[in-house]
Amino acid sequence: MLPMGLPAPALAQGDADPALMPSPQKIQMGTGKFLINSNLKIALRGLEDMRVKHAAERFQAALSRITGIPLPPNNDHVIVPNFIVNWTTSGEKIQKLGEDESYRLEVTATEVHLDAPTPLGVLHGLQTFLQLVQIGPEGFAAPVLVIEDSPRFPWRGLLIDVARHFMPVEVIKRELDGMEAVKFNVLHWHLSDDQGFRVESRKSPRFAKMSSDGSFYTQDQIREIIEYARDRGIRVVPEFDMPGHTTSWFVAYPELASAPGPYEISRHFGVHDAAMDPTREHTYKFLDEFIGEMARLFPDQYFHIGGDEVNGKQWASNPKIQAFMHAHGLKNARDLQAHFNKRLQTIVRKHGKIMEGWDEILHADLPKEVVVQSWRGQKALADAVQQGYWGMLSFGYYLDLMQPASQHYLIDPFGGAAANLSAEEKQRVLGGEACMWSELITPVNIDERIWPRAAAVAERLWSPQEARNVDDMYSRLAKLSERLEWAGLEHVRSYDLMLQRLRGGTDIQPLRVLADVLEPVKGYARPHTKHYETTTPLNRLVDAVRPESDVARAFAGEVQRFLNKRASPTDLEGMRTVLAIWRDNDQRLAPALHGNSLLEEAVPLSQNLAGIAATGLQTLEYLNAGGRAPAAWRQQQLDLLKQAQTPQAELLNMVAPSVQKLVEATSPQ
Amino acid sequence: MLPMGLPAPALAQGDADPALMPSPQKIQMGTGKFLINSNLKIALRGLEDMRVKHAAERFQAALSRITGIPLPPNNDHVIVPNFIVNWTTSGEKIQKLGEDESYRLEVTATEVHLDAPTPLGVLHGLQTFLQLVQIGPEGFAAPVLVIEDSPRFPWRGLLIDVARHFMPVEVIKRELDGMEAVKFNVLHWHLSDDQGFRVESRKSPRFAKMSSDGSFYTQDQIREIIEYARDRGIRVVPEFDMPGHTTSWFVAYPELASAPGPYEISRHFGVHDAAMDPTREHTYKFLDEFIGEMARLFPDQYFHIGGDEVNGKQWASNPKIQAFMHAHGLKNARDLQAHFNKRLQTIVRKHGKIMEGWDEILHADLPKEVVVQSWRGQKALADAVQQGYWGMLSFGYYLDLMQPASQHYLIDPFGGAAANLSAEEKQRVLGGEACMWSELITPVNIDERIWPRAAAVAERLWSPQEARNVDDMYSRLAKLSERLEWAGLEHVRSYDLMLQRLRGGTDIQPLRVLADVLEPVKGYARPHTKHYETTTPLNRLVDAVRPESDVARAFAGEVQRFLNKRASPTDLEGMRTVLAIWRDNDQRLAPALHGNSLLEEAVPLSQNLAGIAATGLQTLEYLNAGGRAPAAWRQQQLDLLKQAQTPQAELLNMVAPSVQKLVEATSPQ
Repeated sequence: MLPMGLPAPALAQGDADPALMPSPQKIQMGTGKFLINSNLKIALRGLEDMRVKHAAERFQAALSRITGIPLPPNNDHVIVPNFIVNWTTSGEKIQKLGEDESYRLEVTATEVHLDAPTPLGVLHGLQTFLQLVQIGPEGFAAPVLVIEDSPRFPWRGLLIDVARHFMPVEVIKRELDGMEAVKFNVLHWHLSDDQGFRVESRKSPRFAKMSSDGSFYTQDQIREIIEYARDRGIRVVPEFDMPGHTTSWFVAYPELASAPGPYEISRHFGVHDAAMDPTREHTYKFLDEFIGEMARLFPDQYFHIGGDEVNGKQWASNPKIQAFMHAHGLKNARDLQAHFNKRLQTIVRKHGKIMEGWDEILHADLPKEVVVQSWRGQKALADAVQQGYWGMLSFGYYLDLMQPASQHYLIDPFGGAAANLSAEEKQRVLGGEACMWSELITPVNIDERIWPRAAAVAERLWSPQEARNVDDMYSRLAKLSERLEWAGLEHVRSYDLMLQRLRGGTDIQPLRVLADVLEPVKGYARPHTKHYETTTPLNRLVDAVRPESDVARAFAGEVQRFLNKRASPTDLEGMRTVLAIWRDNDQRLAPALHGNSLLEEAVPLSQNLAGIAATGLQTLEYLNAGGRAPAAWRQQQLDLLKQAQTPQAELLNMVAPSVQKLVEATSPQ
Repeated sequence: MLPMGLPAPALAQGDADPALMPSPQKIQMGTGKFLINSNLKIALRGLEDMRVKHAAERFQAALSRITGIPLPPNNDHVIVPNFIVNWTTSGEKIQKLGEDESYRLEVTATEVHLDAPTPLGVLHGLQTFLQLVQIGPEGFAAPVLVIEDSPRFPWRGLLIDVARHFMPVEVIKRELDGMEAVKFNVLHWHLSDDQGFRVESRKSPRFAKMSSDGSFYTQDQIREIIEYARDRGIRVVPEFDMPGHTTSWFVAYPELASAPGPYEISRHFGVHDAAMDPTREHTYKFLDEFIGEMARLFPDQYFHIGGDEVNGKQWASNPKIQAFMHAHGLKNARDLQAHFNKRLQTIVRKHGKIMEGWDEILHADLPKEVVVQSWRGQKALADAVQQGYWGMLSFGYYLDLMQPASQHYLIDPFGGAAANLSAEEKQRVLGGEACMWSELITPVNIDERIWPRAAAVAERLWSPQEARNVDDMYSRLAKLSERLEWAGLEHVRSYDLMLQRLRGGTDIQPLRVLADVLEPVKGYARPHTKHYETTTPLNRLVDAVRPESDVARAFAGEVQRFLNKRASPTDLEGMRTVLAIWRDNDQRLAPALHGNSLLEEAVPLSQNLAGIAATGLQTLEYLNAGGRAPAAWRQQQLDLLKQAQTPQAELLNMVAPSVQKLVEATSPQ
């Protein structure tokens, strides 16, 4: 892939092989194609089911969008259906963990047959069919084939944190559309935290009024989202994080806290001291009422109580709590939290739900039905299931850490310390969840932060464990990314918009050339570099650039081919052209950076790219002339390249490592 | 402006002058800036009004999107408001034609004051402020100024035809967002035609079931749209076109027709024979019930009955109708239609509405309250108001004819034959409406067909008549276009998506270089070239390319500067670079065209561009070497260029005329 704005190589017709993501369990290719035209007619042959009806309508509209072929809901002018959908049961009234999601899709040259035991399988099969449709010599068509497909894990989720930065209803709907496309089936909705409480409670109205800055979902909106998710085969599991991560609760109800108020909504991030008082009966009475209300609002069988990162400071400095611990033989904060969790679990159970929580809730006092979500590692997952609990993996799937899709892709719920689990223990691993924590995201860049990378996790949780070919994954991910934009996601569009925002205009090409080779710093480096609060503008270059640079990855591949002596003269010419554009880009870009309050910090990044590219070009000359480079020059470049790899403006130049490889391939003379 | 993918010139900081569209009545610039940051706090100081409250929430969200600065609805941590909104009345419960829409916006370095007599003025002022915000050396800011603004005409509309191709609710909402941004205040909703009937009627349920192919709005959806429009200061005027354009009605209720059924929903376009029977009492009884129901559903004071293009054939061949005409002294179809309109007007009036219709309804028998919408010319408008009727202009504002924004912009309701109206007659010209007829549009390309060109009409109807500087208009239109994409319109994004659809992938750069210099053929040339039906796929290159090529317009400007001897050496070099890229593009693009069922037809267009560009380059050489060109070569090029300007695949090469100018500037030797 070349950066935008470079002379592209000659184009050829796309590959006709289906690029499906997640990859199905079984696929058998035939010959020929099923052509899409306005005579497409769907017959729904199962029990009447609104989910299937809606899905068929959305499918037809999506197919029409993708192809530009009009496909009205009732094309009565067509007599004989050629897209036959069969399902045998209507599925659970409230979508249930472990429901059959399998389907069989048979495409012939004249007909499509989609068969599934439940509506969920139908939904998945329709999404697979959409991914099959490609333009070709005869028009839009799906290849003749048979797919038999079912998920590897029953719990395939995406966590969205709406507490640190609120995400409006339309954003959540967009993400649900993306989730449907890659067969995720759980939205884990992180609804409260120190920085905000995002749900209207009728019993506790002060939450919305005092704990949300006015950014919350009404109960009607919650119901609307749940309905929207159900229509897409997605369960909605709410999380109300407690006893820590609760500062915003105490703004409205300070009597729940372990230290006297008043409290303010927190504007900063990280572990807070605020924690509920687990020693007062009032706390449980309040939670009983609150959880009762929420249990009715959220129909799913599971209820997530958080339970992570309680530092125990408020407990340690409250004499009454200390006395309680002493009286009940609770040795430390961990024991006290376990005491709290046990009481909490009783309340959750009373309201008909199964409790779920993060790693830290794991404690032998809890009943075995509890689900433990591991964020700390596969070891924590293994521990939980070995002790007889249900487990789920999120370690390795944190999208906010800006890691490449390949890294998420290769982490398996049965990998690492979980590899040696017994078959019986593995049964208790339900799946996993990608997590989008929202300290540093906004409604504008959330799509870009989630998509398409989350699809790598979706595939990990759906497809066979053996699917581990990273190159193949990336090529399918690129196709999926296109389709996600058709589905209404804005990960591509928002990148352009944010570059325009920075630039103050649409002439963003040189800025894009730079942005295309950058990536945000990884892990928790951003909050370690700068103090972020919820009011900090997220409009810098680092907020716009993609988590993963496709351009840099492609360039790394070209460099590797070149070093392996497998580059053609055309390939070499391509590398030279790209390097020359990078070398000359600063000259074009610099005037737009100076005097722009947001782009000023990109000045060294732009200069860096020019220097790196000049080094790369010179190195290619040396390598083509036998590989010897002046020793002093060589060392100087290596020093500069090392320097160029240190973060600037919280951004990394991702082509520097490839140019470094080139320099290292020369020998000093 | 350069085509995407060309080496761009060095960038400079954007102009700080406010680029407002529509241009306000009065603007007085000050010095300094009001900075946008998270301390922005709005105070609403008028009577409690939900429209203003919603508008302020949307304003804050939009400002936050545009700037990347978090602005929660209640930023209680800020004590002192610095954005003060005052309004004095709550306005009409149902938005009324002629309500005061004026506002005064004063921006100082520390405060913003927005004052308006009604909530409508507040809405307009907020949109103006959004357009003022630009990135600069100190961050996002609005310049210090005072604006006093009010519309020239009280009726500024956009017609959307949802009969020929249905547009889902989310599309209509998008267009309403765009309309709000440019201060349009009427959505004229063309809801029925030969090809479909798009509203659920509870009294006449067969319309939805039989006349819509399943594509219609439920009454709840209609109410939702009306509410959405009202929130944006936009009235919704429904049109049910009669007595012609009614084939779809007769599928459900053939007894209304002038010829026996059964009828089928029409799949083709143009003037149809089908017309209601104006001689049967049953027709009026039915319409009384139907209009009564619709008059309750649509609260606006106006009700559009269409009335255009009745060819009278069904009336001529029905002996009973002929006898009726004879008995009542009706000489021709025009008289019979006037008879129908008179009865219809009584019904419309009975249900509390004022009747509106197209040119053809003009007839002395109608009461003077009727509004005549002129699609045939300014003469028709003048006739109507001279006869004492109210008038409104749509002639010259048909967006489906693919004319440039400048053409729409220069047509004035008081221009042409309407220029000599008396002051009193001019009072009866209410304004105008841009029209988006939907024979050749889909939910995917509608935004590109409407925006940004419709804004030229919006400005014509809002701003002073004297505003006629086309270059200035285009430079503001470009800014507006960016902002519209932030507002959720998809005119930019859909262009890319459609090119990707054609290409079958994201590597669209060479295709885009070609598409950027093309325009669809003008006027009614498309239906004259090829037979279109409602089921015809609209997925060809002509459906993707923009109505107006910015690249070709920019190139024409460069050629003109060059021929006027005002081009710098850099300008000349820029022209050469562009021409070279065009010349070489076919080589890169051709492999993607061959064997692609949709792009095959673009082969000659791509070759054409290469030839035109080669000619252009050669001509520049001649012109730089004194201007003499070999006579035979010169003539041959002129012939080729003439040939190159004939439509291919319903597309026009828009740079050919500029290259022709260059060749014509040489002298034969």
